[in-house]
Amino acid sequence: MRIVRYLRQRQACWGIVEGNSVSALCGDPYARVKRGAGTMPLASARLLPPAAPGKIILAGLNYKDHARELGMPIPREPVIFLKPPTALLAHEANIVYPAGVKRVDYEAELALVIGKPGRNIRKKDVSKHIFGYTCLNDVTARDLQKKDGQWTRAKSFDTFCPVGPWIETEFNPDQAVIRSFLNGKQKQCSTAAQFIFSVTFLVSWISRVMTLLPGDIISTGTPPGVGKLKPGDTVAVAIDGIGVLRNRVSAAPFR
Amino acid sequence: MRIVRYLRQRQACWGIVEGNSVSALCGDPYARVKRGAGTMPLASARLLPPAAPGKIILAGLNYKDHARELGMPIPREPVIFLKPPTALLAHEANIVYPAGVKRVDYEAELALVIGKPGRNIRKKDVSKHIFGYTCLNDVTARDLQKKDGQWTRAKSFDTFCPVGPWIETEFNPDQAVIRSFLNGKQKQCSTAAQFIFSVTFLVSWISRVMTLLPGDIISTGTPPGVGKLKPGDTVAVAIDGIGVLRNRVSAAPFR
Repeated sequence: MRIVRYLRQRQACWGIVEGNSVSALCGDPYARVKRGAGTMPLASARLLPPAAPGKIILAGLNYKDHARELGMPIPREPVIFLKPPTALLAHEANIVYPAGVKRVDYEAELALVIGKPGRNIRKKDVSKHIFGYTCLNDVTARDLQKKDGQWTRAKSFDTFCPVGPWIETEFNPDQAVIRSFLNGKQKQCSTAAQFIFSVTFLVSWISRVMTLLPGDIISTGTPPGVGKLKPGDTVAVAIDGIGVLRNRVSAAPFR
Repeated sequence: MRIVRYLRQRQACWGIVEGNSVSALCGDPYARVKRGAGTMPLASARLLPPAAPGKIILAGLNYKDHARELGMPIPREPVIFLKPPTALLAHEANIVYPAGVKRVDYEAELALVIGKPGRNIRKKDVSKHIFGYTCLNDVTARDLQKKDGQWTRAKSFDTFCPVGPWIETEFNPDQAVIRSFLNGKQKQCSTAAQFIFSVTFLVSWISRVMTLLPGDIISTGTPPGVGKLKPGDTVAVAIDGIGVLRNRVSAAPFR
């Protein structure tokens, strides 16, 4: 199933995508997908980020080929960081290039959405806690990331967390091919076979630190080939079997 | 006013503390404090963290005397990081010492709660966006903080963000005296005169990165004198004019 959130009569609403239509759901879909009333063409639905997370947890360096590209050793444990929910951005909405920032990069990632609360989740139970998978762009102000040491400011600007276009509930992450395109040209391409830490490992490991709740997003790191964005660019994260998350970059409004 | 959240008929509810009583409020208090029905003795109310934030933003090194203690230069810009909402802990609840962690420290802090949404808030307008002030303990797994480089894991464990006991809406942060006590013995004591970045500066600066929403918590860094906790300890953060946030440390349950 492809689960979306969208605006319906000016209210945020969950929906299911079937062919070229979106049908409304009753309430959130985590425990049960229950159909409501109302269908509209997908093309005319204004999509929202497909989850409303309490937290967005991202893994740093998690691709063997990216570690090689950077000349870094394979880490023994993940490094994690958080983005605030105010950074979320929907498919087709604009990434805003912040005033005063010198370099903004795209980072294509496979992300998962938690469907069932959990803490200290055993590896064999992880799949029961995952609702589905989506595309995420870990947009980063690279100059501020280097300057601050801590990554939070660089990764927390409003619009720096595009997610979508939907959550695909039937997806095998072990087969994932993660790609990014800048103005239509492929820039990143790698597969889950390059993961240093698997989805199962990451979810279990993170759940030993913090309780995971329905809607929480966990992102799995980015392949080699990250690069810079400028206003006017269009960037896409594409994962076969999920879909394409596309966003344009706009300059900060004058103020 | 002293604003609390507490359990009332098993439901989270906002309240106002007057003398030794808590009176229920209707809805959240950010836009308007509206009294509901029901009063109970404060001593028998089970307090919750006094805000339900979308994000918890903390400033790193922000006391001149702490920078001197660490032999570090005075930074030109704040360094910020996030804690997840699942780390929140109420007054009198237990900080759980995680299994496998070697050193857990207390860090007493003055925190503020946002009452009005804002982005790019001008310094002269900051006070309109602050709902009130509270005590916060930035509990940190010091060994993991050093090991990871990024501070997120070390500061994100469940129970690692005690906040409370309430939000004091009439408080002058420029006069704040921030203290911590370990098992009744004073360990930290400094004042807002030592702040490198004022509350006004921090709120305005952070709002240029991310939109601030009602309930969001911003914490202002810790004075010199941080130190380690062990199971069985009682730690308190005391700020005159706000109150005392007290928590005991318990060992992780066997599993």
